[in-house]
Amino acid sequence: MAFTGKRLKGLIAATFTPMTPNSDINLLVIEQYVDYLVQKQHIRNIFVNGTTGEGMSLSICERKRLTEEWVKHARGKMDNVIVHVGCLGLSDSKDLAAHAASCGADAISAVCPSFLKPANLDALVLYLKDVASAAPSLPFYYYHIPKITGITYQIYELLGKVKENIPSFRGVKFSDVNLMDFSLCVSEYKEFDCLYGVDEQLLGALAFGAHGAVGSTYNYLGNKNGDMLEAFEAGNLQKARKIQCSLQEFLYFVFDMGWGLAEFKDIMSQVSGIPLGPSRLPLYSSMKSNHHDDIKTKMLKLDLI
Amino acid sequence: MAFTGKRLKGLIAATFTPMTPNSDINLLVIEQYVDYLVQKQHIRNIFVNGTTGEGMSLSICERKRLTEEWVKHARGKMDNVIVHVGCLGLSDSKDLAAHAASCGADAISAVCPSFLKPANLDALVLYLKDVASAAPSLPFYYYHIPKITGITYQIYELLGKVKENIPSFRGVKFSDVNLMDFSLCVSEYKEFDCLYGVDEQLLGALAFGAHGAVGSTYNYLGNKNGDMLEAFEAGNLQKARKIQCSLQEFLYFVFDMGWGLAEFKDIMSQVSGIPLGPSRLPLYSSMKSNHHDDIKTKMLKLDLI
Amino acid sequence: MAFTGKRLKGLIAATFTPMTPNSDINLLVIEQYVDYLVQKQHIRNIFVNGTTGEGMSLSICERKRLTEEWVKHARGKMDNVIVHVGCLGLSDSKDLAAHAASCGADAISAVCPSFLKPANLDALVLYLKDVASAAPSLPFYYYHIPKITGITYQIYELLGKVKENIPSFRGVKFSDVNLMDFSLCVSEYKEFDCLYGVDEQLLGALAFGAHGAVGSTYNYLGNKNGDMLEAFEAGNLQKARKIQCSLQEFLYFVFDMGWGLAEFKDIMSQVSGIPLGPSRLPLYSSMKSNHHDDIKTKMLKLDLI
Amino acid sequence: MAFTGKRLKGLIAATFTPMTPNSDINLLVIEQYVDYLVQKQHIRNIFVNGTTGEGMSLSICERKRLTEEWVKHARGKMDNVIVHVGCLGLSDSKDLAAHAASCGADAISAVCPSFLKPANLDALVLYLKDVASAAPSLPFYYYHIPKITGITYQIYELLGKVKENIPSFRGVKFSDVNLMDFSLCVSEYKEFDCLYGVDEQLLGALAFGAHGAVGSTYNYLGNKNGDMLEAFEAGNLQKARKIQCSLQEFLYFVFDMGWGLAEFKDIMSQVSGIPLGPSRLPLYSSMKSNHHDDIKTKMLKLDLI
Repeated sequence: MAFTGKRLKGLIAATFTPMTPNSDINLLVIEQYVDYLVQKQHIRNIFVNGTTGEGMSLSICERKRLTEEWVKHARGKMDNVIVHVGCLGLSDSKDLAAHAASCGADAISAVCPSFLKPANLDALVLYLKDVASAAPSLPFYYYHIPKITGITYQIYELLGKVKENIPSFRGVKFSDVNLMDFSLCVSEYKEFDCLYGVDEQLLGALAFGAHGAVGSTYNYLGNKNGDMLEAFEAGNLQKARKIQCSLQEFLYFVFDMGWGLAEFKDIMSQVSGIPLGPSRLPLYSSMKSNHHDDIKTKMLKLDLI
Repeated sequence: MAFTGKRLKGLIAATFTPMTPNSDINLLVIEQYVDYLVQKQHIRNIFVNGTTGEGMSLSICERKRLTEEWVKHARGKMDNVIVHVGCLGLSDSKDLAAHAASCGADAISAVCPSFLKPANLDALVLYLKDVASAAPSLPFYYYHIPKITGITYQIYELLGKVKENIPSFRGVKFSDVNLMDFSLCVSEYKEFDCLYGVDEQLLGALAFGAHGAVGSTYNYLGNKNGDMLEAFEAGNLQKARKIQCSLQEFLYFVFDMGWGLAEFKDIMSQVSGIPLGPSRLPLYSSMKSNHHDDIKTKMLKLDLI
Repeated sequence: MAFTGKRLKGLIAATFTPMTPNSDINLLVIEQYVDYLVQKQHIRNIFVNGTTGEGMSLSICERKRLTEEWVKHARGKMDNVIVHVGCLGLSDSKDLAAHAASCGADAISAVCPSFLKPANLDALVLYLKDVASAAPSLPFYYYHIPKITGITYQIYELLGKVKENIPSFRGVKFSDVNLMDFSLCVSEYKEFDCLYGVDEQLLGALAFGAHGAVGSTYNYLGNKNGDMLEAFEAGNLQKARKIQCSLQEFLYFVFDMGWGLAEFKDIMSQVSGIPLGPSRLPLYSSMKSNHHDDIKTKMLKLDLI
Repeated sequence: MAFTGKRLKGLIAATFTPMTPNSDINLLVIEQYVDYLVQKQHIRNIFVNGTTGEGMSLSICERKRLTEEWVKHARGKMDNVIVHVGCLGLSDSKDLAAHAASCGADAISAVCPSFLKPANLDALVLYLKDVASAAPSLPFYYYHIPKITGITYQIYELLGKVKENIPSFRGVKFSDVNLMDFSLCVSEYKEFDCLYGVDEQLLGALAFGAHGAVGSTYNYLGNKNGDMLEAFEAGNLQKARKIQCSLQEFLYFVFDMGWGLAEFKDIMSQVSGIPLGPSRLPLYSSMKSNHHDDIKTKMLKLDLI
């Protein structure tokens, strides 16, 4: 059975989870966040409660409240809300999948448990099948991020196995640098959406036919990335490359400081003006106020904002 | 403030979680399980909902129910029930810590979240402090298992930092092969309990002064391991080594088959006669019935049962 | 001082080292090999004694004899012979560098010793500077292949340091999947040649402006890869992608068999008809004669030969 | 055919290679070095041209000259000179093996090539067999150091295969923390010598029956380590542990400074008074003269010198 719904493409912002100064979830700024993405960054798709959203650090109850709020405010303003339902526990993931369906999400996605890892690829397929079965009406996307999970099965091989086994399977969020595997998926499985998840080398994935991209930089650099996509699609590779290089210089600066997710959240707060609060422990931002100025200077210099 | 309670030592069985054929938790056999450990294996301490217990694959609610049941049945029969409360989410871990205290557990332990990893050692300390604070009356043990979590800070360095910061901190479950780090912990921090967690080389840790051991083989090979401890303490290194070697030959056989946790659960069911059921996906046992005979033959040959 | 010589670009075949059935080097077929590359595969640049050429498994004397022979036969027929001079020992590398210069090679390249690794990036620069100094008239290319060496310094950072320190430094053979690092090198250091070395995802590197490519598949799939480059340069991304995907399907087939360098050498012998002999231990080809037919069938089906 | 010669046991110093200030080999101090080891550190066995000796950074010619000199000066003063003959190239290793035999070495040892790694365990055995065959009269020891080579086959499995295939095979220099593998080797293959190579946790290996130990700290802490061995053999585990802990505190101090082999060479020069010179690039010592005082203070405080 082929899934007949709409396809995911273009830029998908992996949203940060707004928090209060005490690291409680802060639902009050979600409407503002959605409007910011649509109006300022021209982003019409979001991936919520994923890695960027610290979904794995939240309780099931918090994830449900966040899903409800994102779906409510995105309705009529955005095209797709994809809800990440991956957890370490299968029953929790199924619970979240069913909840996402019940409140009107457009799709679900799940990472595989990485503490107790699947014994083999078949066990992974069985796991994904069980999660997907809790929301059979929603397109299901496998979330591949081996650098974090240590689960390194080739997606090309996985797609061959899920094709017959999971009717609602619809594609992959592919957050890895192995572009041969990505390319084989795109070229051989045209019925699936292949969404790339390594922002700093998106252009490479576009060259291999990526349908879309999911990432955190699309929150505050959505316009720039949108320009890159447009230039690429228009055949203007020089322009696309120039934009990608600016993004890389910015990311190099950030990584070189030793920064990670907690600091990216700070940056998003700075750029957007939306108070997203701190990250939850064991993440911890080491940005100082002078760093905020450094970042702004860097972004201006690179013509990113 | 130094913690003044009793110390953990000797063998601590990391219990499997009994499940029904459908992978629901099965509370009905826990009493039988406790009695088996005490009467047949002479084990008087258990570590519940840890890696062996698939704690990370269970829902918060399931973990609470299991904790209650283990504590209830161990009361009066065993010396210590240590409850693993580590989760990917901080609030979940605090919830479980408070619950463990409320139902009479003797100690708690927590692994650090490994999907979104601590930015640095200080962030890890802040995280652990917050978890421990939810059950300030219970001794707290850090659970170090870098092969699974990828969190590789040296425990010797960690102990120096927690000493002043976490009043209820009491020791470490050290599941790694770096015996220099382990030895430095034992020799420098005499106020903490250093429990070793790599069953197949426990004798090496004993040579460095391990206070006790937490592991899955103590469920069904408690007697043999008890004999090893006794021989070691009596200064009979030859005998201790002979037993450890038998255990290693058995484990080599299992690992060489490509087996892991799901198959160890099967083995425990076979040896104990307690129906522990399957593991939860994405774990999946590949043992066939003829394997059960192979295992039994191997154990008999090695004089383990 | 900026180097003013010609630039390296396009396809560069990393040559296999011809051997007798006893794994001695076989100089007799080198002329035939050169003619094959030029006439049948339209390859005009070669990288000799590198990874593909098992350079690290050969003695210094053998490497010199091979260099002499490749240079002799390539003269007048090819544009560039780049000689890999990397060894575990600095004096050996300098010896080979001076020898390459003396016999008329066009450029040299060196991997960093990977048994005793550089303590830091500065030590690596000192090392490379010393090697390059033995052949100051030859363009020098750093050979970056972290998956084999475990040396993972970012090349972008390295280039900033060598720029002022090594007058003959001219670029990098970049055999890694980190395209952000590669792209930063291309965009920021326009005076250097950035040659990509992961054949299976060359198209991704081309999107980032790769100047050329060094790899083993260009030996027997030079035409196909040449067509890809041509299509890419003509702006025909669809065609380039189609060719790259055929190559990927072929490589997937090979990798999936568990095959590596020794088997690739067998394949080259089959396709070219040049008897290249076995690989030297500890490499060992597991191809059987029926595999030769499988490979041929696969290549025909993929329209590669 | 069982080898009938003497067995290796006790402490074996992995010697540093003396160099001039220009990093040329310095044969002139070798006699002094031998006398220092025998008279001051009571060491009667040496392992030359290994990792500590930067053997892999030296040319074949240099290694031969060093071997000759070590053998000449050790004759009559020491019990065994084991020559490391491992290289990346098979012919080089065979050349060194034959040379070692010709000049009177007592045994040879070889690491497996790690740039082009063996395809499987059988290829590794074929490789080792070929090396050993070049010096059939000398006991051959496989050098297992997976942290550097990335070659992780279990030695227990290797021993089963070499037993029938390599008549002169005699044991293993086991430089890894996997004590289960080590223990299985000791207990199952009593005809082989199992020499442990991780100085900082030697006591753990002794508990499993290690026959001897090869390491760099035995150069300048031979007496202390000798005391540990003696205490262990006398059944005084407390004393052995106390010494091992002092050594660990010292090593922790060194590692915590980010120091490695180049700095250990400096330390040996300081402690022994023998001018060993610098290390060869890409190694590079970052010790300053004030560090020499720090090290001395630390060693005095730990009662090591």
